[in-house]
Amino acid sequence: MNLICRKIYLELNPPGSGDALADRERILRALRPQYGNVIMSIDKLKSSYKLLRNTDWKLTVTIVNNGYAWEIVRIEQGDTTDKNYAYAADLGSTTVVMQLVDLNSGKVIGEESIFNHQISFGDDILSRIIYAKDNDKHLKEIQECTLQNFNELMEILHSKTGIPEEECGVLIIGGNTTMTHFLFGIDPWCLFYTPYTPAFNSIGFIKGRTLGLSFDGLVYCFPSVANYLGGDIISGLLSSELYKHHELALFMDIGTNGEMILGNDEFLLAAAGAAGPALEGGISKQGMKASAGAVDSVKIVDNEMIITTINNVDPIGICGSGIIDLLAEMFLEGWIDYSGTFVPGKSQRIVMREGELVVIYAWEHESGSHEELVFRQSDIYKFLDTKAAANTMVAFLLDTLGLELNGIQRVYAAGAFGAHLNLESAITIGLYPDLPRDRFVQVGNGSLTGAGLLLRNAELLTTAESFIDKIVYLPLAEAKDFLMKMHAAKFLPHTNFDLYPSVMEKLKQRRR
Amino acid sequence: MNLICRKIYLELNPPGSGDALADRERILRALRPQYGNVIMSIDKLKSSYKLLRNTDWKLTVTIVNNGYAWEIVRIEQGDTTDKNYAYAADLGSTTVVMQLVDLNSGKVIGEESIFNHQISFGDDILSRIIYAKDNDKHLKEIQECTLQNFNELMEILHSKTGIPEEECGVLIIGGNTTMTHFLFGIDPWCLFYTPYTPAFNSIGFIKGRTLGLSFDGLVYCFPSVANYLGGDIISGLLSSELYKHHELALFMDIGTNGEMILGNDEFLLAAAGAAGPALEGGISKQGMKASAGAVDSVKIVDNEMIITTINNVDPIGICGSGIIDLLAEMFLEGWIDYSGTFVPGKSQRIVMREGELVVIYAWEHESGSHEELVFRQSDIYKFLDTKAAANTMVAFLLDTLGLELNGIQRVYAAGAFGAHLNLESAITIGLYPDLPRDRFVQVGNGSLTGAGLLLRNAELLTTAESFIDKIVYLPLAEAKDFLMKMHAAKFLPHTNFDLYPSVMEKLKQRRR
Repeated sequence: MNLICRKIYLELNPPGSGDALADRERILRALRPQYGNVIMSIDKLKSSYKLLRNTDWKLTVTIVNNGYAWEIVRIEQGDTTDKNYAYAADLGSTTVVMQLVDLNSGKVIGEESIFNHQISFGDDILSRIIYAKDNDKHLKEIQECTLQNFNELMEILHSKTGIPEEECGVLIIGGNTTMTHFLFGIDPWCLFYTPYTPAFNSIGFIKGRTLGLSFDGLVYCFPSVANYLGGDIISGLLSSELYKHHELALFMDIGTNGEMILGNDEFLLAAAGAAGPALEGGISKQGMKASAGAVDSVKIVDNEMIITTINNVDPIGICGSGIIDLLAEMFLEGWIDYSGTFVPGKSQRIVMREGELVVIYAWEHESGSHEELVFRQSDIYKFLDTKAAANTMVAFLLDTLGLELNGIQRVYAAGAFGAHLNLESAITIGLYPDLPRDRFVQVGNGSLTGAGLLLRNAELLTTAESFIDKIVYLPLAEAKDFLMKMHAAKFLPHTNFDLYPSVMEKLKQRRR
Repeated sequence: MNLICRKIYLELNPPGSGDALADRERILRALRPQYGNVIMSIDKLKSSYKLLRNTDWKLTVTIVNNGYAWEIVRIEQGDTTDKNYAYAADLGSTTVVMQLVDLNSGKVIGEESIFNHQISFGDDILSRIIYAKDNDKHLKEIQECTLQNFNELMEILHSKTGIPEEECGVLIIGGNTTMTHFLFGIDPWCLFYTPYTPAFNSIGFIKGRTLGLSFDGLVYCFPSVANYLGGDIISGLLSSELYKHHELALFMDIGTNGEMILGNDEFLLAAAGAAGPALEGGISKQGMKASAGAVDSVKIVDNEMIITTINNVDPIGICGSGIIDLLAEMFLEGWIDYSGTFVPGKSQRIVMREGELVVIYAWEHESGSHEELVFRQSDIYKFLDTKAAANTMVAFLLDTLGLELNGIQRVYAAGAFGAHLNLESAITIGLYPDLPRDRFVQVGNGSLTGAGLLLRNAELLTTAESFIDKIVYLPLAEAKDFLMKMHAAKFLPHTNFDLYPSVMEKLKQRRR
């Protein structure tokens, strides 16, 4: 493994007898043959020079590869090379996930997630952005609660694994462009106002303490490419290895934003835009994240709805994979029509509530309330907006290259939900293209996976940084007849049935 | 000129129309063809990204060469390339001197000096070191007053030249090893306790704000080589250009410490040790720095003493050049003998005061007191210790190489006083070797000069850093019969008269 963070045990000649070299340079001299001109900051010197005189010059240095040079992040007495840990994280708008990785074995020894503390400034990103806009105090508040996410996750991982944050040399983060702007305390308003370009793509490696974390190691965020094409996608691309192979592949990440990349080892063409939090359950009042009690799968057999929930507890809401199943099954059974509109009378579960047709997908039993859990007509239309945006982005990428859908040899389906999604359902409703199923790879949280890969292979740093130059980003605003195409994509699975032959076949069989 | 700090005017394409590159990377991309991967820190981004949107993408960046890469230290609207300034400084134990240099013309447009604020913790270095030893609070106090020196000098230079500190991109400092340890807040006790090695030789470039200065540019201290061989000597060596030429040369800096380097373009052999503040007037109660009222030259004609003072005001004390003249003239006139002992009766100025022979070299008239200004017998002996140490270091260097004194083709006499010293007097008392006078170059404050040279020629950075490896440092403690040799050198000019033929000739003529 070409680890990005290494521990080196040194036994140095003590100073004296004509060798008057200073402590700092004595260590750097020992590292130079293998690691070149290693960086040792004034802070690191200040926190360790007194220790050095007590080590008998037998010490272990932890060094991190920042892409240009190695930097010392820790100095310990004696040989501690048997312990080498680091963090990988996905900084999502809703959820922040962190892994603690044992670099000696390459194994993940802990993974924890929490809701992003930013949520206290608004569920949706836009309200957070407006809160921080042109207001340094507010911006600082959001930065601080962003940092708090990581401090808290480090604490949780410490208590779960027994390994404290000082044992970790580096933290690699995949996050979207807005999240990384908030993390570094940069006003992200620029991303939402003409010309919609970020203040920065990459900051490189920065000391945890400098950033404001209670962490002595280095922190790196994957570079972003554009406002809607963030470091999370770059990290996900790394995890897919799409950029390595010659086959034409599509990378899809549909979450709060929709991000699509079409390419191979020669080119990378990208389109992205706000998709709405459709797949985090955010479009429905009773939508929720994939946690205990979320309806995560739905089947309709003999006109009866069969649901499962996460952890098999009583249902309390519905998550992304549940929504996609629900819509696909209702469509196949004719409970909703091609336009996503409820067909009343098809099921007793389709009822009027608060002046709107809804489907009752479950009942909440908690505290004996027997409350209805419903998915509304307006929820469906909102979801169709999202799916249409994603669908149209793919069409736009193909059009730009003059390619047919069938030319796509591989589809990498990413997103926090990705691994749990029912592929058939996603194709049935036209969220994913109708291609042979063996072309699909569900990569799960590619952002987190990519961050973990970088820990184990420092070369990916160059690869990631080079993406900025390589990716051609197509602004959707400049796409011809985008809105018209999007309108056509709002139907189930699509107005152009020819694009979804397997779905047509399924419909025929189910409705026979 | 290969300036270490440059201003580059950029007219960039505004973002938009498929060019979604971020602000930070937009600037770095423009600089890359000529300056490679330029560094732009998170701080610099935070302080300038809002400005960028208002510059119409016509802006001037100030970049500093840190030896490995260029780093952006300032971003301004419009074209400001006509103003490019920087600081050079000598951080002395007693005095701190700073120059403001106009990099466009290469000219020094201001030079100011102040007493080192550290003096409030002790006149001599050792009491400051003991105050700070193993006491973080005390250490921090001394660091802060060290930083205060630079903040104050920047303010003075601002008021004198109208150019504020934000117009300056970089500050280069030459300082001895103890001074640089204090500057960076590192306990210098290690320099005075076995094995007498520094905690660091070089820190490289560091942001002024990170260091604790009210200065946004970068700060660089010349690297030290050993406890008594500091960055001030490295800077002085640069100013002498000794390392460039093939002739064998001696670099001498006798101040608080004595530092000697013998070498040429092939090798550099060094010896150094505490010399005592002999030449800053520190050995005498009435000794003083070379400022108004200091006796700076002494002649004895027809047994009458003729003095001059700096600024031609009434005398208030005596500075280094005055002491050397005084001793040389008294020796030539026979007022003191070969051992430096007063010969009573030779002059009415030689009198007993407080149980000790002294020479009255002047009377202080201020406030009508008519107080005697005296140089004591014990002062003379203390001075001879210093001169003997310096003399023996040179002998030791020559012995190590198996060379004769006459092999030295060039002598660079450095030190803050260097330019003002009477060369004949210094040779007469054996402080400098008796060599043909045209071999002497008085380089003045070489530490300050070298810092100024680095501003104008960034290549010297590599040269300076390479000195650490190249200089062979001879520990005086390991010199055979050092103490015996030093004893022999305590005589005027030396026990071995053969080493001082021109002095013998002068003696013959004066005493005839």
